[in-house]
Amino acid sequence: MILAADNMQITNRVVADALKEMRPEAIQNLAKACEAAGADMLDINSGPLSRDPESKMRFLIESVQDVSDLPLLIDTANPKAMAAGLRANRKQVIINGFSLEPAKLEAILPLAKEFDADIIAYLLHPDSRVPADSTERLNIAVEICHEIRKSGINENRLIIDPVIVPMMWENGAVQASEVLSVIRMLPDLLGFPVRTVAGLSNLTSGKGNREKKRIAEQTYLPMLAGAGLTMALLNIFHHETARVCSLLTPSLSQPARIFTWEEI
Amino acid sequence: MILAADNMQITNRVVADALKEMRPEAIQNLAKACEAAGADMLDINSGPLSRDPESKMRFLIESVQDVSDLPLLIDTANPKAMAAGLRANRKQVIINGFSLEPAKLEAILPLAKEFDADIIAYLLHPDSRVPADSTERLNIAVEICHEIRKSGINENRLIIDPVIVPMMWENGAVQASEVLSVIRMLPDLLGFPVRTVAGLSNLTSGKGNREKKRIAEQTYLPMLAGAGLTMALLNIFHHETARVCSLLTPSLSQPARIFTWEEI
Repeated sequence: MILAADNMQITNRVVADALKEMRPEAIQNLAKACEAAGADMLDINSGPLSRDPESKMRFLIESVQDVSDLPLLIDTANPKAMAAGLRANRKQVIINGFSLEPAKLEAILPLAKEFDADIIAYLLHPDSRVPADSTERLNIAVEICHEIRKSGINENRLIIDPVIVPMMWENGAVQASEVLSVIRMLPDLLGFPVRTVAGLSNLTSGKGNREKKRIAEQTYLPMLAGAGLTMALLNIFHHETARVCSLLTPSLSQPARIFTWEEI
Repeated sequence: MILAADNMQITNRVVADALKEMRPEAIQNLAKACEAAGADMLDINSGPLSRDPESKMRFLIESVQDVSDLPLLIDTANPKAMAAGLRANRKQVIINGFSLEPAKLEAILPLAKEFDADIIAYLLHPDSRVPADSTERLNIAVEICHEIRKSGINENRLIIDPVIVPMMWENGAVQASEVLSVIRMLPDLLGFPVRTVAGLSNLTSGKGNREKKRIAEQTYLPMLAGAGLTMALLNIFHHETARVCSLLTPSLSQPARIFTWEEI
Protein backbone atom coordinates (compact mmCIF):
# COMPACT_ATOMS: atom_id res chain seq x y z
CA MET A 1 0.00 0.00 0.00
CA ILE A 2 1.30 3.41 -0.98
CA LEU A 3 1.35 5.90 1.92
CA ALA A 4 0.46 9.46 0.93
CA ALA A 5 0.93 12.03 3.70
CA ASP A 6 -2.01 14.42 4.15
CA ASN A 7 -0.01 16.61 6.54
CA MET A 8 0.62 19.42 4.07
CA GLN A 9 -2.71 21.19 4.47
CA ILE A 10 -3.89 24.64 5.36
CA THR A 11 -5.53 23.44 8.60
CA ASN A 12 -2.00 22.68 9.80
CA ARG A 13 -0.95 25.88 11.61
CA VAL A 14 2.66 25.55 10.42
CA VAL A 15 1.53 25.46 6.80
CA ALA A 16 -0.98 28.29 7.25
CA ASP A 17 1.63 30.60 8.82
CA ALA A 18 4.27 29.78 6.22
CA LEU A 19 1.78 30.45 3.42
CA LYS A 20 0.73 33.78 4.88
CA GLU A 21 4.30 35.06 4.88
CA MET A 22 5.39 33.04 1.83
CA ARG A 23 8.32 31.54 3.78
CA PRO A 24 9.35 28.16 2.37
CA GLU A 25 11.45 26.83 5.29
CA ALA A 26 8.65 25.47 7.50
CA ILE A 27 6.97 23.84 4.50
CA GLN A 28 10.24 22.29 3.40
CA ASN A 29 10.97 20.97 6.89
CA LEU A 30 7.52 19.38 6.99
CA ALA A 31 8.03 17.78 3.56
CA LYS A 32 11.37 16.33 4.65
CA ALA A 33 9.87 15.06 7.91
CA CYS A 34 7.01 13.34 6.03
CA GLU A 35 9.50 11.65 3.71
CA ALA A 36 11.63 10.53 6.67
CA ALA A 37 8.51 9.13 8.38
CA GLY A 38 7.84 6.85 5.40
CA ALA A 39 5.62 8.85 3.05
CA ASP A 40 5.69 7.57 -0.53
CA MET A 41 3.82 10.66 -1.76
CA LEU A 42 2.76 14.07 -0.46
CA ASP A 43 -0.72 15.58 -0.75
CA ILE A 44 -0.58 19.36 -1.20
CA ASN A 45 -3.86 20.82 0.00
CA SER A 46 -3.96 24.59 -0.28
CA GLY A 47 -7.52 24.76 1.10
CA PRO A 48 -10.04 27.41 0.11
CA LEU A 49 -7.57 30.25 -0.53
CA SER A 50 -9.41 33.50 -0.82
CA ARG A 51 -6.56 35.60 -2.17
CA ASP A 52 -4.27 34.70 -5.01
CA PRO A 53 -4.82 30.91 -4.98
CA GLU A 54 -2.66 30.37 -8.06
CA SER A 55 0.53 31.93 -6.73
CA LYS A 56 0.04 30.27 -3.35
CA MET A 57 -0.33 26.81 -4.88
CA ARG A 58 2.70 27.48 -7.09
CA PHE A 59 4.66 28.58 -4.03
CA LEU A 60 3.74 25.37 -2.15
CA ILE A 61 4.68 23.07 -5.05
CA GLU A 62 7.98 24.83 -5.75
CA SER A 63 8.93 24.95 -2.08
CA VAL A 64 8.32 21.22 -1.64
CA GLN A 65 10.00 20.18 -4.88
CA ASP A 66 13.14 22.11 -3.97
CA VAL A 67 13.74 19.59 -1.18
CA SER A 68 11.84 16.40 -2.10
CA ASP A 69 11.52 14.14 -5.14
CA LEU A 70 8.34 12.47 -3.86
CA PRO A 71 5.38 12.39 -6.25
CA LEU A 72 2.71 14.94 -5.32
CA LEU A 73 -1.07 14.94 -5.13
CA ILE A 74 -2.41 18.41 -5.93
CA ASP A 75 -5.48 18.77 -3.77
CA THR A 76 -7.78 21.70 -4.49
CA ALA A 77 -11.31 22.31 -5.73
CA ASN A 78 -10.18 25.52 -7.47
CA PRO A 79 -9.48 24.78 -11.17
CA LYS A 80 -7.14 27.77 -11.52
CA ALA A 81 -5.09 26.77 -8.48
CA MET A 82 -5.01 23.21 -9.84
CA ALA A 83 -3.70 24.36 -13.22
CA ALA A 84 -1.12 26.58 -11.55
CA GLY A 85 0.06 23.67 -9.41
CA LEU A 86 0.29 21.38 -12.44
CA ARG A 87 2.34 23.96 -14.33
CA ALA A 88 4.71 24.41 -11.39
CA ASN A 89 5.11 20.66 -10.87
CA ARG A 90 8.30 19.02 -12.17
CA LYS A 91 7.71 15.39 -11.05
CA GLN A 92 5.12 12.62 -11.17
CA VAL A 93 1.77 14.13 -10.15
CA ILE A 94 -1.80 13.20 -9.29
CA ILE A 95 -4.79 15.53 -9.65
CA ASN A 96 -6.91 15.30 -6.46
CA GLY A 97 -9.61 15.27 -7.65
CA PHE A 98 -12.91 15.36 -9.50
CA SER A 99 -16.42 13.87 -9.24
CA LEU A 100 -19.60 13.75 -11.33
CA GLU A 101 -20.39 17.27 -10.12
CA PRO A 102 -20.83 19.20 -13.43
CA ALA A 103 -18.41 22.03 -12.54
CA LYS A 104 -15.65 19.52 -11.74
CA LEU A 105 -16.29 17.43 -14.84
CA GLU A 106 -15.99 20.57 -16.90
CA ALA A 107 -13.01 22.28 -15.27
CA ILE A 108 -10.91 19.64 -13.47
CA LEU A 109 -11.19 16.49 -15.60
CA PRO A 110 -9.74 18.08 -18.81
CA LEU A 111 -6.57 19.00 -16.86
CA ALA A 112 -5.65 15.31 -16.65
CA LYS A 113 -5.42 15.18 -20.43
CA GLU A 114 -3.73 18.54 -20.79
CA PHE A 115 -1.01 17.73 -18.23
CA ASP A 116 -0.85 13.96 -18.87
CA ALA A 117 -1.50 13.33 -15.18
CA ASP A 118 -3.13 10.68 -13.01
CA ILE A 119 -6.47 11.81 -11.60
CA ILE A 120 -8.52 10.84 -8.54
CA ALA A 121 -12.29 10.43 -8.90
CA TYR A 122 -14.54 10.62 -5.86
CA LEU A 123 -17.49 8.24 -5.83
CA LEU A 124 -20.06 10.95 -5.06
CA HIS A 125 -23.39 11.73 -6.69
CA PRO A 126 -23.45 14.67 -9.15
CA ASP A 127 -24.93 16.84 -6.36
CA SER A 128 -22.03 15.75 -4.06
CA ARG A 129 -24.20 13.52 -1.89
CA VAL A 130 -22.39 10.51 -0.42
CA PRO A 131 -23.69 7.22 -1.89
CA ALA A 132 -25.81 5.14 0.49
CA ASP A 133 -24.13 1.80 -0.18
CA SER A 134 -21.75 -0.19 -2.37
CA THR A 135 -24.26 -0.56 -5.21
CA GLU A 136 -24.60 3.20 -5.57
CA ARG A 137 -20.81 3.56 -5.41
CA LEU A 138 -20.27 0.95 -8.13
CA ASN A 139 -22.85 2.59 -10.40
CA ILE A 140 -21.05 5.91 -9.98
CA ALA A 141 -17.71 4.24 -10.77
CA VAL A 142 -19.12 3.01 -14.07
CA GLU A 143 -20.34 6.56 -14.85
CA ILE A 144 -16.89 7.94 -13.99
CA CYS A 145 -15.22 5.51 -16.38
CA HIS A 146 -17.62 6.60 -19.08
CA GLU A 147 -16.68 10.26 -18.49
CA ILE A 148 -12.96 9.43 -18.48
CA ARG A 149 -13.19 7.71 -21.86
CA LYS A 150 -15.40 10.46 -23.26
CA SER A 151 -12.65 12.95 -22.36
CA GLY A 152 -10.05 10.92 -24.26
CA ILE A 153 -8.13 10.08 -21.08
CA ASN A 154 -6.57 6.63 -20.74
CA GLU A 155 -8.43 4.66 -18.05
CA ASN A 156 -5.07 3.73 -16.51
CA ARG A 157 -4.83 7.36 -15.38
CA LEU A 158 -7.82 6.86 -13.09
CA ILE A 159 -7.56 6.38 -9.31
CA ILE A 160 -10.88 5.88 -7.51
CA ASP A 161 -11.69 7.20 -4.04
CA PRO A 162 -14.72 5.29 -2.66
CA VAL A 163 -15.25 8.04 -0.04
CA ILE A 164 -14.91 7.05 3.60
CA VAL A 165 -17.58 8.63 5.81
CA PRO A 166 -17.40 9.40 9.55
CA MET A 167 -18.00 6.31 11.64
CA MET A 168 -20.03 8.54 13.97
CA TRP A 169 -22.71 8.83 11.29
CA GLU A 170 -25.79 6.78 12.02
CA ASN A 171 -24.84 4.24 9.32
CA GLY A 172 -21.07 4.86 9.65
CA ALA A 173 -20.11 1.28 10.51
CA VAL A 174 -22.15 -0.15 7.64
CA GLN A 175 -20.61 2.43 5.29
CA ALA A 176 -17.14 1.36 6.48
CA SER A 177 -17.92 -2.22 5.42
CA GLU A 178 -19.40 -1.05 2.12
CA VAL A 179 -16.23 0.88 1.28
CA LEU A 180 -14.18 -2.31 1.82
CA SER A 181 -16.50 -4.22 -0.54
CA VAL A 182 -16.21 -1.52 -3.19
CA ILE A 183 -12.40 -1.61 -3.06
CA ARG A 184 -12.47 -5.39 -3.51
CA MET A 185 -15.04 -5.34 -6.33
CA LEU A 186 -13.89 -2.39 -8.48
CA PRO A 187 -11.18 -4.13 -10.56
CA ASP A 188 -13.53 -6.95 -11.60
CA LEU A 189 -16.43 -4.58 -12.20
CA LEU A 190 -14.44 -2.17 -14.37
CA GLY A 191 -12.41 -4.88 -16.08
CA PHE A 192 -8.97 -3.41 -15.44
CA PRO A 193 -6.71 -3.18 -12.37
CA VAL A 194 -7.99 0.22 -11.33
CA ARG A 195 -6.10 1.87 -8.50
CA THR A 196 -7.88 3.09 -5.37
CA VAL A 197 -7.21 5.73 -2.74
CA ALA A 198 -8.95 6.63 0.54
CA GLY A 199 -8.68 9.51 2.98
CA LEU A 200 -8.38 7.82 6.37
CA SER A 201 -9.02 10.90 8.52
CA ASN A 202 -12.60 11.11 7.17
CA LEU A 203 -13.39 8.08 9.33
CA THR A 204 -13.03 10.06 12.53
CA SER A 205 -13.92 13.60 11.52
CA GLY A 206 -16.09 15.48 13.98
CA LYS A 207 -15.74 15.94 17.69
CA GLY A 208 -14.40 13.17 19.89
CA ASN A 209 -11.65 11.66 21.96
CA ARG A 210 -8.31 11.87 20.11
CA GLU A 211 -6.98 8.57 21.42
CA LYS A 212 -10.13 6.72 20.32
CA LYS A 213 -9.88 8.33 16.90
CA ARG A 214 -6.27 7.20 16.63
CA ILE A 215 -7.22 3.60 17.49
CA ALA A 216 -10.16 3.66 15.06
CA GLU A 217 -7.91 4.84 12.19
CA GLN A 218 -5.20 2.33 13.15
CA THR A 219 -7.83 -0.41 12.89
CA TYR A 220 -9.53 0.62 9.68
CA LEU A 221 -6.25 1.16 7.80
CA PRO A 222 -5.31 -2.57 7.80
CA MET A 223 -8.86 -3.44 6.73
CA LEU A 224 -8.41 -1.14 3.74
CA ALA A 225 -4.97 -2.61 3.02
CA GLY A 226 -6.31 -6.15 3.24
CA ALA A 227 -9.13 -5.26 0.83
CA GLY A 228 -6.49 -4.19 -1.70
CA LEU A 229 -6.43 -0.40 -1.36
CA THR A 230 -3.62 0.97 -3.54
CA MET A 231 -2.97 4.19 -1.68
CA ALA A 232 -3.89 5.57 1.74
CA LEU A 233 -4.02 9.28 2.44
CA LEU A 234 -3.15 9.74 6.11
CA ASN A 235 -1.31 11.60 8.84
CA ILE A 236 2.05 9.96 8.30
CA PHE A 237 3.19 10.67 11.86
CA HIS A 238 0.29 8.89 13.58
CA HIS A 239 0.07 5.51 11.97
CA GLU A 240 2.09 2.81 13.61
CA THR A 241 0.08 0.12 11.79
CA ALA A 242 0.83 1.65 8.36
CA ARG A 243 4.30 0.14 7.98
CA VAL A 244 3.08 -3.31 9.02
CA CYS A 245 0.32 -3.02 6.39
CA SER A 246 3.02 -2.67 3.77
CA LEU A 247 4.93 -5.60 5.24
CA LEU A 248 1.89 -7.91 5.42
CA THR A 249 0.41 -7.21 1.98
CA PRO A 250 3.57 -7.27 -0.14
CA SER A 251 1.75 -8.12 -3.37
CA LEU A 252 -0.42 -5.04 -2.95
CA SER A 253 2.40 -2.69 -2.02
CA GLN A 254 3.99 -2.14 -5.42
CA PRO A 255 5.40 0.30 -6.28
CA ALA A 256 5.53 1.65 -2.73
CA ARG A 257 8.42 1.09 -0.40
CA ILE A 258 8.07 -2.21 1.46
CA PHE A 259 9.18 -1.91 5.03
CA THR A 260 11.13 -4.69 6.67
CA TRP A 261 10.63 -6.00 10.19
CA GLU A 262 13.67 -3.97 11.29
CA GLU A 263 12.06 -0.74 10.09
CA ILE A 264 8.72 -1.10 11.87
CA MET B 1 -15.88 -10.87 15.01
CA ILE B 2 -16.03 -13.09 18.09
CA LEU B 3 -13.15 -12.53 20.49
CA ALA B 4 -11.86 -15.70 22.16
CA ALA B 5 -9.27 -15.12 24.89
CA ASP B 6 -6.19 -17.37 24.66
CA ASN B 7 -4.95 -16.24 28.08
CA MET B 8 -5.94 -19.42 29.92
CA GLN B 9 -2.90 -21.49 28.98
CA ILE B 10 -0.20 -23.38 30.77
CA THR B 11 2.55 -21.03 29.53
CA ASN B 12 0.87 -18.36 31.67
CA ARG B 13 2.67 -18.60 35.02
CA VAL B 14 -0.50 -17.85 36.98
CA VAL B 15 -2.28 -20.77 35.35
CA ALA B 16 0.69 -23.12 35.71
CA ASP B 17 1.04 -22.40 39.45
CA ALA B 18 -2.68 -22.70 40.10
CA LEU B 19 -2.79 -26.03 38.25
CA LYS B 20 0.17 -27.41 40.18
CA GLU B 21 -1.55 -26.80 43.48
CA MET B 22 -5.10 -27.30 42.15
CA ARG B 23 -6.17 -23.92 43.55
CA PRO B 24 -9.11 -22.47 41.57
CA GLU B 25 -8.94 -18.82 42.73
CA ALA B 26 -6.24 -17.53 40.36
CA ILE B 27 -7.87 -19.30 37.42
CA GLN B 28 -11.26 -17.88 38.32
CA ASN B 29 -9.87 -14.36 38.66
CA LEU B 30 -8.27 -14.67 35.23
CA ALA B 31 -11.54 -15.92 33.70
CA LYS B 32 -13.44 -13.00 35.19
CA ALA B 33 -10.80 -10.53 34.02
CA CYS B 34 -10.97 -11.92 30.46
CA GLU B 35 -14.75 -11.57 30.46
CA ALA B 36 -14.51 -8.01 31.78
CA ALA B 37 -11.95 -7.17 29.07
CA GLY B 38 -14.44 -8.14 26.36
CA ALA B 39 -13.88 -11.85 25.72
CA ASP B 40 -16.85 -13.56 24.06
CA MET B 41 -15.30 -17.01 24.68
CA LEU B 42 -12.42 -18.55 26.63
CA ASP B 43 -9.86 -21.01 25.24
CA ILE B 44 -8.79 -23.53 27.88
CA ASN B 45 -5.34 -24.84 26.93
CA SER B 46 -4.00 -27.32 29.42
CA GLY B 47 -0.78 -27.83 27.46
CA PRO B 48 1.16 -31.11 27.38
CA LEU B 49 0.31 -32.29 30.88
CA SER B 50 2.53 -35.15 31.87
CA ARG B 51 0.65 -36.24 34.97
CA ASP B 52 -3.06 -36.82 35.22
CA PRO B 53 -4.18 -34.75 32.21
CA GLU B 54 -7.82 -35.74 32.61
CA SER B 55 -8.30 -34.51 36.16
CA LYS B 56 -6.34 -31.32 35.43
CA MET B 57 -8.50 -30.46 32.43
CA ARG B 58 -11.61 -31.26 34.46
CA PHE B 59 -10.35 -29.00 37.25
CA LEU B 60 -9.77 -26.12 34.79
CA ILE B 61 -13.19 -26.42 33.19
CA GLU B 62 -15.03 -26.69 36.50
CA SER B 63 -13.11 -23.82 38.06
CA VAL B 64 -13.88 -21.51 35.14
CA GLN B 65 -17.53 -22.51 34.84
CA ASP B 66 -18.13 -21.83 38.52
CA VAL B 67 -17.58 -18.12 37.79
CA SER B 68 -18.28 -17.60 34.07
CA ASP B 69 -21.01 -18.48 31.59
CA LEU B 70 -18.83 -17.81 28.54
CA PRO B 71 -18.65 -20.59 25.94
CA LEU B 72 -15.35 -22.49 26.10
CA LEU B 73 -12.87 -23.82 23.59
CA ILE B 74 -11.23 -26.99 24.92
CA ASP B 75 -7.70 -26.88 23.56
CA THR B 76 -5.61 -30.01 23.90
CA ALA B 77 -4.00 -32.62 21.65
CA ASN B 78 -4.64 -35.32 24.26
CA PRO B 79 -7.88 -37.19 23.41
CA LYS B 80 -8.40 -38.34 27.01
CA ALA B 81 -8.01 -34.83 28.38
CA MET B 82 -10.37 -33.61 25.64
CA ALA B 83 -13.02 -36.17 26.57
CA ALA B 84 -12.65 -35.33 30.27
CA GLY B 85 -13.05 -31.65 29.50
CA LEU B 86 -16.14 -32.28 27.38
CA ARG B 87 -17.69 -34.38 30.17
CA ALA B 88 -17.00 -31.66 32.74
CA ASN B 89 -18.38 -28.89 30.51
CA ARG B 90 -21.87 -27.58 31.24
CA LYS B 91 -22.17 -24.83 28.57
CA GLN B 92 -21.73 -24.26 24.84
CA VAL B 93 -18.37 -25.76 23.84
CA ILE B 94 -15.92 -25.98 20.94
CA ILE B 95 -13.37 -28.78 20.46
CA ASN B 96 -9.97 -27.25 19.56
CA GLY B 97 -9.15 -29.11 17.46
CA PHE B 98 -8.29 -31.73 14.87
CA SER B 99 -6.50 -32.00 11.51
CA LEU B 100 -5.98 -34.62 8.80
CA GLU B 101 -3.30 -36.21 10.99
CA PRO B 102 -4.53 -39.83 11.29
CA ALA B 103 -4.31 -39.97 15.12
CA LYS B 104 -6.47 -36.83 15.41
CA LEU B 105 -9.00 -38.00 12.82
CA GLU B 106 -9.36 -41.20 14.77
CA ALA B 107 -9.43 -39.94 18.36
CA ILE B 108 -10.56 -36.29 18.33
CA LEU B 109 -13.05 -36.01 15.46
CA PRO B 110 -15.52 -38.61 16.84
CA LEU B 111 -15.80 -36.60 20.08
CA ALA B 112 -17.67 -33.87 18.16
CA LYS B 113 -20.44 -36.35 17.37
CA GLU B 114 -20.40 -37.98 20.80
CA PHE B 115 -20.69 -34.66 22.64
CA ASP B 116 -22.70 -32.78 19.97
CA ALA B 117 -20.03 -30.06 19.94
CA ASP B 118 -18.59 -27.59 17.46
CA ILE B 119 -15.11 -28.57 16.29
CA ILE B 120 -12.14 -26.64 14.90
CA ALA B 121 -10.18 -28.12 11.98
CA TYR B 122 -6.65 -26.96 11.26
CA LEU B 123 -5.72 -26.66 7.61
CA LEU B 124 -2.54 -28.73 7.94
CA HIS B 125 -1.24 -31.63 5.86
CA PRO B 126 -1.73 -35.15 7.32
CA ASP B 127 1.93 -35.06 8.46
CA SER B 128 1.23 -31.68 10.17
CA ARG B 129 3.21 -29.65 7.63
CA VAL B 130 1.90 -26.12 7.08
CA PRO B 131 0.43 -25.68 3.56
CA ALA B 132 2.56 -23.60 1.20
CA ASP B 133 -0.23 -21.40 -0.15
CA SER B 134 -3.97 -20.81 -0.41
CA THR B 135 -4.49 -23.55 -3.01
CA GLU B 136 -3.06 -26.20 -0.68
CA ARG B 137 -5.17 -24.84 2.17
CA LEU B 138 -8.37 -24.95 0.10
CA ASN B 139 -7.66 -28.53 -1.01
CA ILE B 140 -7.21 -29.53 2.63
CA ALA B 141 -10.48 -27.79 3.55
CA VAL B 142 -12.31 -29.92 0.99
CA GLU B 143 -10.71 -33.05 2.47
CA ILE B 144 -11.73 -31.94 5.97
CA CYS B 145 -15.35 -31.52 4.87
CA HIS B 146 -15.25 -34.99 3.41
CA GLU B 147 -14.03 -36.40 6.74
CA ILE B 148 -16.66 -34.45 8.69
CA ARG B 149 -19.48 -35.87 6.56
CA LYS B 150 -17.97 -39.37 6.68
CA SER B 151 -18.11 -39.16 10.48
CA GLY B 152 -21.80 -38.27 10.41
CA ILE B 153 -21.17 -34.80 11.83
CA ASN B 154 -23.25 -31.88 10.54
CA GLU B 155 -21.05 -29.54 8.52
CA ASN B 156 -22.46 -26.61 10.49
CA ARG B 157 -20.43 -27.92 13.44
CA LEU B 158 -17.20 -27.17 11.58
CA ILE B 159 -14.99 -24.13 12.27
CA ILE B 160 -11.90 -23.86 10.06
CA ASP B 161 -8.52 -22.53 11.21
CA PRO B 162 -6.43 -21.58 8.13
CA VAL B 163 -3.26 -21.62 10.28
CA ILE B 164 -1.39 -18.34 10.65
CA VAL B 165 2.39 -18.77 10.43
CA PRO B 166 5.10 -16.55 11.93
CA MET B 167 5.69 -13.45 9.82
CA MET B 168 9.40 -13.96 10.52
CA TRP B 169 9.38 -17.06 8.32
CA GLU B 170 11.00 -16.50 4.96
CA ASN B 171 7.60 -16.49 3.23
CA GLY B 172 5.71 -15.18 6.28
CA ALA B 173 4.30 -12.06 4.62
CA VAL B 174 3.07 -13.99 1.59
CA GLN B 175 1.51 -16.59 3.92
CA ALA B 176 -0.25 -13.77 5.79
CA SER B 177 -1.88 -12.68 2.52
CA GLU B 178 -2.75 -16.25 1.60
CA VAL B 179 -4.54 -16.77 4.91
CA LEU B 180 -6.69 -13.70 4.19
CA SER B 181 -7.59 -15.09 0.75
CA VAL B 182 -8.52 -18.44 2.24
CA ILE B 183 -10.84 -16.83 4.80
CA ARG B 184 -12.57 -14.90 2.01
CA MET B 185 -12.87 -17.91 -0.34
CA LEU B 186 -13.89 -20.73 2.02
CA PRO B 187 -17.67 -20.09 2.17
CA ASP B 188 -18.00 -20.02 -1.62
CA LEU B 189 -15.68 -23.00 -2.07
CA LEU B 190 -17.46 -25.19 0.48
CA GLY B 191 -20.94 -23.98 -0.42
CA PHE B 192 -22.08 -23.09 3.09
CA PRO B 193 -21.32 -20.20 5.47
CA VAL B 194 -18.47 -22.02 7.21
CA ARG B 195 -17.10 -20.30 10.28
CA THR B 196 -13.39 -19.52 10.62
CA VAL B 197 -11.01 -19.01 13.53
CA ALA B 198 -7.35 -17.93 13.70
CA GLY B 199 -4.75 -17.83 16.46
CA LEU B 200 -3.29 -14.34 16.23
CA SER B 201 -0.23 -14.92 18.42
CA ASN B 202 1.16 -17.38 15.85
CA LEU B 203 1.95 -14.35 13.67
CA THR B 204 4.67 -13.15 16.03
CA SER B 205 5.88 -16.34 17.66
CA GLY B 206 9.63 -16.56 18.06
CA LYS B 207 12.12 -14.12 19.48
CA GLY B 208 11.70 -10.42 18.93
CA ASN B 209 10.82 -6.98 20.18
CA ARG B 210 7.55 -7.10 22.18
CA GLU B 211 6.33 -3.70 21.07
CA LYS B 212 6.82 -4.57 17.40
CA LYS B 213 4.97 -7.84 17.94
CA ARG B 214 2.09 -5.93 19.52
CA ILE B 215 1.88 -3.57 16.55
CA ALA B 216 2.09 -6.44 14.06
CA GLU B 217 -0.79 -8.28 15.77
CA GLN B 218 -2.83 -5.06 16.06
CA THR B 219 -2.40 -4.61 12.29
CA TYR B 220 -3.12 -8.15 11.16
CA LEU B 221 -6.26 -8.51 13.32
CA PRO B 222 -8.28 -5.90 11.35
CA MET B 223 -7.13 -7.51 8.10
CA LEU B 224 -8.54 -10.82 9.35
CA ALA B 225 -11.76 -9.10 10.49
CA GLY B 226 -12.13 -7.35 7.14
CA ALA B 227 -11.66 -10.66 5.32
CA GLY B 228 -14.60 -12.05 7.29
CA LEU B 229 -12.94 -14.06 10.07
CA THR B 230 -15.65 -15.31 12.44
CA MET B 231 -13.54 -15.70 15.56
CA ALA B 232 -10.11 -14.49 16.67
CA LEU B 233 -8.10 -16.27 19.34
CA LEU B 234 -5.97 -13.64 21.05
CA ASN B 235 -4.55 -12.12 24.21
CA ILE B 236 -7.66 -10.23 25.24
CA PHE B 237 -5.67 -7.72 27.30
CA HIS B 238 -3.40 -6.56 24.46
CA HIS B 239 -5.69 -5.76 21.60
CA GLU B 240 -6.88 -2.21 21.45
CA THR B 241 -7.88 -2.65 17.80
CA ALA B 242 -10.10 -5.66 18.60
CA ARG B 243 -13.10 -3.68 19.79
CA VAL B 244 -12.97 -1.37 16.80
CA CYS B 245 -12.93 -4.45 14.55
CA SER B 246 -16.25 -5.45 16.02
CA LEU B 247 -17.59 -1.92 15.59
CA LEU B 248 -16.45 -1.59 11.95
CA THR B 249 -17.59 -4.98 10.68
CA PRO B 250 -21.03 -5.22 12.28
CA SER B 251 -22.42 -7.67 9.74
CA LEU B 252 -19.60 -10.08 10.54
CA SER B 253 -19.83 -9.73 14.29
CA GLN B 254 -22.89 -11.86 15.01
CA PRO B 255 -23.39 -13.37 17.50
CA ALA B 256 -20.56 -11.61 19.30
CA ARG B 257 -21.00 -8.54 21.38
CA ILE B 258 -20.80 -5.39 19.25
CA PHE B 259 -18.96 -2.63 21.01
CA THR B 260 -20.16 0.94 20.74
CA TRP B 261 -17.98 3.99 20.27
CA GLU B 262 -18.35 4.71 24.00
CA GLU B 263 -16.89 1.32 24.91
CA ILE B 264 -13.72 1.49 22.79
